[in-house]
Amino acid sequence: MRVSLKDVAAHAGVSIKTVSNVVNNYQHVTPAMRERVQRSIDALGYQPNLAARHLRKGRTGIIALALPELGNPYFAELAAAVIDAAAAHDYIVLLDHTGGRREQEILVSQGFRARVIDGLILSPIELEPEDLSDRAEKVPLVLLGERDYDLPYDHIAIDNVAAARTAVRHLTGLGRREVAFIGARRGRSEPAQLRVRGWREELTAAGLPADDGLVAATDGWGHADGAAAMTRILDSGRRPDAVFAYNDPMAIGAMRVLHERGLRVPEDIAVVGFDDVVEGRFGAVTLTSVSPDKEAIGRLAVESVLTRLGGNEVLTEPRRVRADHRLVERESTVGRAAPGGTGQG
Amino acid sequence: MRVSLKDVAAHAGVSIKTVSNVVNNYQHVTPAMRERVQRSIDALGYQPNLAARHLRKGRTGIIALALPELGNPYFAELAAAVIDAAAAHDYIVLLDHTGGRREQEILVSQGFRARVIDGLILSPIELEPEDLSDRAEKVPLVLLGERDYDLPYDHIAIDNVAAARTAVRHLTGLGRREVAFIGARRGRSEPAQLRVRGWREELTAAGLPADDGLVAATDGWGHADGAAAMTRILDSGRRPDAVFAYNDPMAIGAMRVLHERGLRVPEDIAVVGFDDVVEGRFGAVTLTSVSPDKEAIGRLAVESVLTRLGGNEVLTEPRRVRADHRLVERESTVGRAAPGGTGQG
Repeated sequence: MRVSLKDVAAHAGVSIKTVSNVVNNYQHVTPAMRERVQRSIDALGYQPNLAARHLRKGRTGIIALALPELGNPYFAELAAAVIDAAAAHDYIVLLDHTGGRREQEILVSQGFRARVIDGLILSPIELEPEDLSDRAEKVPLVLLGERDYDLPYDHIAIDNVAAARTAVRHLTGLGRREVAFIGARRGRSEPAQLRVRGWREELTAAGLPADDGLVAATDGWGHADGAAAMTRILDSGRRPDAVFAYNDPMAIGAMRVLHERGLRVPEDIAVVGFDDVVEGRFGAVTLTSVSPDKEAIGRLAVESVLTRLGGNEVLTEPRRVRADHRLVERESTVGRAAPGGTGQG
Repeated sequence: MRVSLKDVAAHAGVSIKTVSNVVNNYQHVTPAMRERVQRSIDALGYQPNLAARHLRKGRTGIIALALPELGNPYFAELAAAVIDAAAAHDYIVLLDHTGGRREQEILVSQGFRARVIDGLILSPIELEPEDLSDRAEKVPLVLLGERDYDLPYDHIAIDNVAAARTAVRHLTGLGRREVAFIGARRGRSEPAQLRVRGWREELTAAGLPADDGLVAATDGWGHADGAAAMTRILDSGRRPDAVFAYNDPMAIGAMRVLHERGLRVPEDIAVVGFDDVVEGRFGAVTLTSVSPDKEAIGRLAVESVLTRLGGNEVLTEPRRVRADHRLVERESTVGRAAPGGTGQG
């Protein structure tokens, strides 16, 4: 006979709720309690049957998460946050990558996987508002990221314009007068545009140059793209004293080029990235970066899907949720002498 | 009426096979052909119905991929390789992360998601052979990675002992005499043991020290773990002239510590990593690394699942498949003057 949650609870001498908390991997269980319940689970050979539990409610227990790219550490860290948040509600995550390409994003948003998912979290890059206007599929959709679609779907994002302004203000506050932007995107769709806008607004407000010669567009957002963009700016004859990059890998790629050319960071050129990925904390020069609250984004996205799926909350209007961000100051702007890694923005 | 592949082919004036290749995102389609077919897809509003196609065969069209961690760029890059390989066969990938914890690996391997998947690719860390011996679930299972289970499942891995020996031989060939290993794992299960064994065998064969004082165990495999391990070795009074790290993030964390202490890489201490992740190519000192053929691992894993699902091949015996690896020499061992990045191992 199948071992139940109740059997495990009786064996361990704890409540069913406690066993459920352990099985579902909730955070707020003490290690000792986890150990105790785990011993009973092992002794009885209990296997949680999540699929069956969801099927009884007519659900699959699966949320799809569609991201532009997994190779980008920001999205890998975001995926981990979503997976953890989903696990806390017994949900598993079907991960998809769209390559940031419009046709893939349309396929995903139109629900070609609808038979196996209860909801979809999508971080679009090229998707246009009209692509969602006749969405046939009715599973809840939550949007993540830069684009503001003004459509009846919940949308979770940080304030990119404000974040970019904070980064640039940090640089101008350090006395930098010529701040380049690398990572504006080629092509018609521009999630980077909000960050470029913040860059331009802040420089203009400070009476500093924000001309196109200081902006390097790229096709991708990897280290190599950042290196190529930095090379292009230097070869153009411009000599900025600071660089704000669309993301951390691009900033790190740019710093490699500066290193090869014998330019010192931050003495000759200060560098700020975006996303605060782990890698930026361990280079020869640690990277100042805008840090979005990835854990909050993951949690809010999952909660949004589950609320739409019919939780307790009466909710019809789509919600715009702002996740927090802060600036983490490190050696690439404030140098090694200063206390790095704990700055606020 | 639903638009079919045939309708798209007729509209574009190409074969159905070509449309299928575009829809399934195969590599070998010219951009011009892709553009042409895409125009017809857009004009007709065609939506591939992968789910229905699989359902007709009694399948879900989903392969689960269970990895220890997504934050580790090696696994992110491997996941991308598996997703690409699966897409070439109309399969989508349900991604799971186990945290490298035995209980999660057991849950996954016992098929608690069996209702929604056709097959499972698992990269285990702590799983013991007995955990798989009474596996109730019958969907095909393919194992990835270091552990050798000697169980009736296909297993795809590189030769870790040989790879580690190649890395260490590279260091001793450069005249290094005291080679530390960082990233042996604390705890009962030891996927790192094969690399430690290769390290020890090669040093012993060369008549060089391979004592425990040169080995730093860690709880995790991230940058911070590598930094902590390097710190511990230096603080112990040992002064190795080379370090071989379990993976690239640990090597990069170690290099940060060496940089902070004023030790030069490679002049004072040469460093070799493992996995050849993108990040290692863009530091102030680029990282020499063992490069497993991730694309091949992903492709072989997917093909193995599909073969077991009942392809054309008559196959009963489990297969052990070795994927290739090579050593990529960069600045962290051969310095900046040498031609880096194209070495062979």
